[in-house]
Amino acid sequence: MDREQVDLIVQNGSVLIMDEAFTVVEDGAVAVAGQYIAEVGPGADVRKKYQSRDILDAEGGIVLPGLVNAHTHAAMTLFRGIADDLPLMEWLNDYIFPAETHLNPEVVYDGTLLACAEMIRSGTTCFCDMYLFEQEVARAARDAGLRAVVGEVLYDFPSPNYGPPQEGLRYSEQLIRDWKGHPIIYPAVEPHAVYTCSPRYLEQIMELAVRHSVPYIIHLAESPGELAQVREKFGKTPVEHMEELGLLSDLVIADHSVCLSPGEIEIYRRRKVKVAHCPESNMKLASGVAPVPHMLRAGVVVGLGTDGCASNNNLDLFQEMDTAAKLHKVHTMDPTVMDAASVLSMATRGGAAALGLAEEIGSLEPGKRADLIVVETRSPHLTPMYNPYSHLVYAARGADVRHTVINGRVAMRDRHLLTLDEEAVMARAREIAAEIRKTVTIKT
Amino acid sequence: MDREQVDLIVQNGSVLIMDEAFTVVEDGAVAVAGQYIAEVGPGADVRKKYQSRDILDAEGGIVLPGLVNAHTHAAMTLFRGIADDLPLMEWLNDYIFPAETHLNPEVVYDGTLLACAEMIRSGTTCFCDMYLFEQEVARAARDAGLRAVVGEVLYDFPSPNYGPPQEGLRYSEQLIRDWKGHPIIYPAVEPHAVYTCSPRYLEQIMELAVRHSVPYIIHLAESPGELAQVREKFGKTPVEHMEELGLLSDLVIADHSVCLSPGEIEIYRRRKVKVAHCPESNMKLASGVAPVPHMLRAGVVVGLGTDGCASNNNLDLFQEMDTAAKLHKVHTMDPTVMDAASVLSMATRGGAAALGLAEEIGSLEPGKRADLIVVETRSPHLTPMYNPYSHLVYAARGADVRHTVINGRVAMRDRHLLTLDEEAVMARAREIAAEIRKTVTIKT
Repeated sequence: MDREQVDLIVQNGSVLIMDEAFTVVEDGAVAVAGQYIAEVGPGADVRKKYQSRDILDAEGGIVLPGLVNAHTHAAMTLFRGIADDLPLMEWLNDYIFPAETHLNPEVVYDGTLLACAEMIRSGTTCFCDMYLFEQEVARAARDAGLRAVVGEVLYDFPSPNYGPPQEGLRYSEQLIRDWKGHPIIYPAVEPHAVYTCSPRYLEQIMELAVRHSVPYIIHLAESPGELAQVREKFGKTPVEHMEELGLLSDLVIADHSVCLSPGEIEIYRRRKVKVAHCPESNMKLASGVAPVPHMLRAGVVVGLGTDGCASNNNLDLFQEMDTAAKLHKVHTMDPTVMDAASVLSMATRGGAAALGLAEEIGSLEPGKRADLIVVETRSPHLTPMYNPYSHLVYAARGADVRHTVINGRVAMRDRHLLTLDEEAVMARAREIAAEIRKTVTIKT
Repeated sequence: MDREQVDLIVQNGSVLIMDEAFTVVEDGAVAVAGQYIAEVGPGADVRKKYQSRDILDAEGGIVLPGLVNAHTHAAMTLFRGIADDLPLMEWLNDYIFPAETHLNPEVVYDGTLLACAEMIRSGTTCFCDMYLFEQEVARAARDAGLRAVVGEVLYDFPSPNYGPPQEGLRYSEQLIRDWKGHPIIYPAVEPHAVYTCSPRYLEQIMELAVRHSVPYIIHLAESPGELAQVREKFGKTPVEHMEELGLLSDLVIADHSVCLSPGEIEIYRRRKVKVAHCPESNMKLASGVAPVPHMLRAGVVVGLGTDGCASNNNLDLFQEMDTAAKLHKVHTMDPTVMDAASVLSMATRGGAAALGLAEEIGSLEPGKRADLIVVETRSPHLTPMYNPYSHLVYAARGADVRHTVINGRVAMRDRHLLTLDEEAVMARAREIAAEIRKTVTIKT
């Protein structure tokens, strides 16, 4: 019998499908045809049915969907470690804002490439970005072959990119026109927050989201400081403010969502608001602990994000999973919350659903885009293996990812990046850092 | 001028001395003579004064003291991921205790070797162990070339190793006689906890510690469950109980110390009790958050530990540092506590001081034992670099360690382990796991 020709077979691993049943195929294989998954099953069956010139050997490791970073500011890799351990306002005013005066299209493109290199290396195959000069983020992600949701940050003051707020709407609409329908780049609109955008501006941005059916992504209820500011300005909480403006819907991705009352979680559920949970950033900035176990019980869709590098300080979603699982256990004093499989689900299918990409990515099912990673387990810290979910969440790290496939294309093979000139990307980042150092005083 | 012959020069890196002044030598070098550090200084000066056949090139990376794991149960690597996310008693009774029936001298030796491989790979050069069959732990650490404080766990019930409690005292004394004076193995006595050791037994163990001047290491005030149990049994807290028995002194290392009142921190300070802080284990088991910023302000010596693999689930102190720094920020809602340099200090000189080894290790100063590591920084997630302390705590991981030197001996060079047959160690661990699987039902 003639075997069907496909473009890639990934074989010889425990395949975690990350479907609702948490199916694991031991000694499984994934056949990839073009940008899509053709089949997933026992290796022998897949090899009987398909042939491929290109084979990725998992050699006993774990094959799983690529991780989804539901919230980051990619180009902030350039500011990683520029300052830490400071009160928020000192950190922003003395370090981040001065460093950001160095931003221009080229710097954002280069900083995003650096982030893409780090993400591909650590098994992230899709990220959701919010930053300035977002056309450059889109270009960089496309060039790196990394799936991305992109949206220009919008606020009431002049932007170094587009100038006055109304131009931000125009810029966002152009971004949508330029990228809608692209196989790996998805445009969005992204108001910064309710304390930096007037009600009228928030509404105008939502009109744009509705007109083009794109996600509406906003930092919401991130910290007690935000709550105090919004209460002072509007006499209500950020979520109440959005609800009263009629702006909460299934288009909304609410980043952080740390300071939520039970009633507000109920509003999220009713309005189908999705959440990007960023535990490490919330810890590092001392913002608080988002009530994620409560949200999940209520049926709210939650993805996992690293936030920007300046407040993390890496983009490693494996570590973020570990932290998420542990933080909520100690916060609720209940060791059974946020079990490993649920947390891995949050970083894969949960993230996909949060970004409105549930039909495309998040699990290894035929017809979905071929975004997958192979984790090497032949190392002391992953030996022996009793349970792959436990290993991925509690013991593995980004450096254990051996192969990364995005949209059917091998972006990393045996730890070698194939879509980027990594040395050139790092050299350029060092040059930019040297410029930044001239205007920002770094304390050591 | 003739140059002095040494055995090893580590050069071409930013050398973090981790002295009290937090001195950094840019383009520095460390000269190692035998088991000791001969000199640390600018590379040019060191090369002018010394010659060596063996050179380790840091190639622009970071050179720092090896990390000190202040509390672990090394052989529990064999139970990593056997069960997670369970109530404590179910986890212990249904998984850990049944798995531990497989323990014998050979299994503990092999499991400890596996832990040593992981620790050397992730930059740990000294660990403090508490387990059964501790003679085997000592042998394994010696064979792996890893510095270790070893002590047999002692409690009121019969031990699978030594039998009745009084034999535990004899076993511990033999351990002390066998290893006292060894260059890298240091014996200790280790009562398990105040709820598992009678007051009389705790006292007898202390007599042994005092007679031989060895550390007295005990799990103390680890969880609310322990507090309740001790209050029920003795009508007081674990720390009050130890204090009233007159057992708190500078010999004591109190592992965990999660549930402490301000008054008890003051007792620790006055009695010079040292602490091993294990944030990830405390989070995963939902034990609580130790008041470490308060302890440090009070002048209590605190080291950092991973605890055993079954409750972590790895031995990566880089990740533990990151978690420690972030956990205390969110717990106190103050982003300035536990800054990166202080946390790195806890994992190096703090750990050394906690284990009573401040004269020997913990910083890169002439006359100290040559325990050092080189961290590779030429990777996307460590580019650019503004501040090495920030990078080590917030962005680096164990996998970034390139070279590990312990007691003057290169234990890992360019990620290759030189003191262990890693493949054989992993193969043996898989065999043991297969045996364990026959008696413990693993849920996936």
